[in-house]
Amino acid sequence: MTPDAANGGEGRAAEERELAEAAPFSAEERAAVYRAIVTRRDVRDEFMPDDVPDDVLRRLLEAAHHAPSVGFMQPWNFIVIRDAAVRSRVREAFERAAAAEAEMLEPERREQYRSLKLQGISKAPLNICVTCDRARHGRTGLGRTQQPDTDLLSTACAVQNLWLAARAEGIGVGWVSILREPDLRAILSIPSEIAIVAYLCVGRVARAYVRPELEVRRWARRLPLDDLVFADRWGAAAPFPRERE
Amino acid sequence: MTPDAANGGEGRAAEERELAEAAPFSAEERAAVYRAIVTRRDVRDEFMPDDVPDDVLRRLLEAAHHAPSVGFMQPWNFIVIRDAAVRSRVREAFERAAAAEAEMLEPERREQYRSLKLQGISKAPLNICVTCDRARHGRTGLGRTQQPDTDLLSTACAVQNLWLAARAEGIGVGWVSILREPDLRAILSIPSEIAIVAYLCVGRVARAYVRPELEVRRWARRLPLDDLVFADRWGAAAPFPRERE
Repeated sequence: MTPDAANGGEGRAAEERELAEAAPFSAEERAAVYRAIVTRRDVRDEFMPDDVPDDVLRRLLEAAHHAPSVGFMQPWNFIVIRDAAVRSRVREAFERAAAAEAEMLEPERREQYRSLKLQGISKAPLNICVTCDRARHGRTGLGRTQQPDTDLLSTACAVQNLWLAARAEGIGVGWVSILREPDLRAILSIPSEIAIVAYLCVGRVARAYVRPELEVRRWARRLPLDDLVFADRWGAAAPFPRERE
Repeated sequence: MTPDAANGGEGRAAEERELAEAAPFSAEERAAVYRAIVTRRDVRDEFMPDDVPDDVLRRLLEAAHHAPSVGFMQPWNFIVIRDAAVRSRVREAFERAAAAEAEMLEPERREQYRSLKLQGISKAPLNICVTCDRARHGRTGLGRTQQPDTDLLSTACAVQNLWLAARAEGIGVGWVSILREPDLRAILSIPSEIAIVAYLCVGRVARAYVRPELEVRRWARRLPLDDLVFADRWGAAAPFPRERE
């Protein structure tokens, strides 16, 4: 008899204690969750200078830390940057990267690109760099041998948790991806074995765009959901009736 | 005078109409958002056989579609799989991948690994494969020339939105990453230029684990948040007092 079998009844009782009801939320609670999802914006210019209090910051980071992670790996770290001199160096790195990116765009989009506000690095009172320690629990973890990049995806889920919690707190977040990794690595002393996943601008906002700012500024439009859903295999018609348009 | 300047006053008024108050949620709404974040679980075995109604499924997919995306790229597609034969082929692919993964783990973890329930592919009434069209708006989009993989991270944010909305709906989600990409690609006819980001099992649940299942089963523990947060640069003490332990 294996130790597991000997321990069967007791093990089952212990496991029962680990399970709780998972009923749907009330209509009001559900609405709050959807409101956070639908009204979350990528904020660039609406930041107010007030500092984000420590207790709010901790709640945002706890939300991030409760993201799903492959093999419960929790590969993330959070560098919270309040130092204005550090943020100023990051902003300079952004300016260089944005100038390079503008050159790479199709010529007809360049002028529009240059007119967009794409970061709030110095305007926001704090920035958060979110990283991924790819070897946190060894290179061959549960769920990572067939899809090794799932640790980076887990870290992106942590960013999204933080972002939604921030919306509920009246805190805006902007994700700046126009930054060269070597610049960020040097400015923030990030070791070479740690991947950089996101650089976030974070601060209180009084107002936010009703629609995504890039839609307001006619950079891109929201695609119809019905065009993005297939049934059972790629390309097959969506599994539910199309919404009237 | 540029057309922009000529249009300044009118443009500003139009922009004002695009902005709305972004105050903090009420205490009850905030609690609902945090409850979704903290009680969300990676579900493997608690699925009930009831079908997920179309209106609920549409809300989950709309939540995913409201994720942030680099340059408002919206690179995702969703393959909703109800066909039991298709799910059965995916489950077979999982069994092969899990057998291979077990061989790659440290020998002392192998037995424990084999005792874990790691998927609900056939038990859940529906599966959703989430993909990323890496060239949806051309290869050089806003925010992607310096960090080309941000489209994959955006797609992970869509998964997290779906997962949190599902929790609020009483729907469980499990992310199966023990699958070889070529197997999924063949079974679901996914074109070679489309990246596969997540394979999800989705269904109603009556109960869920209070703690992450891999913690309950002693595969891994939650790390203390304070160990994961730095101030201003990698390795520097966290920006707030440590929580008492």
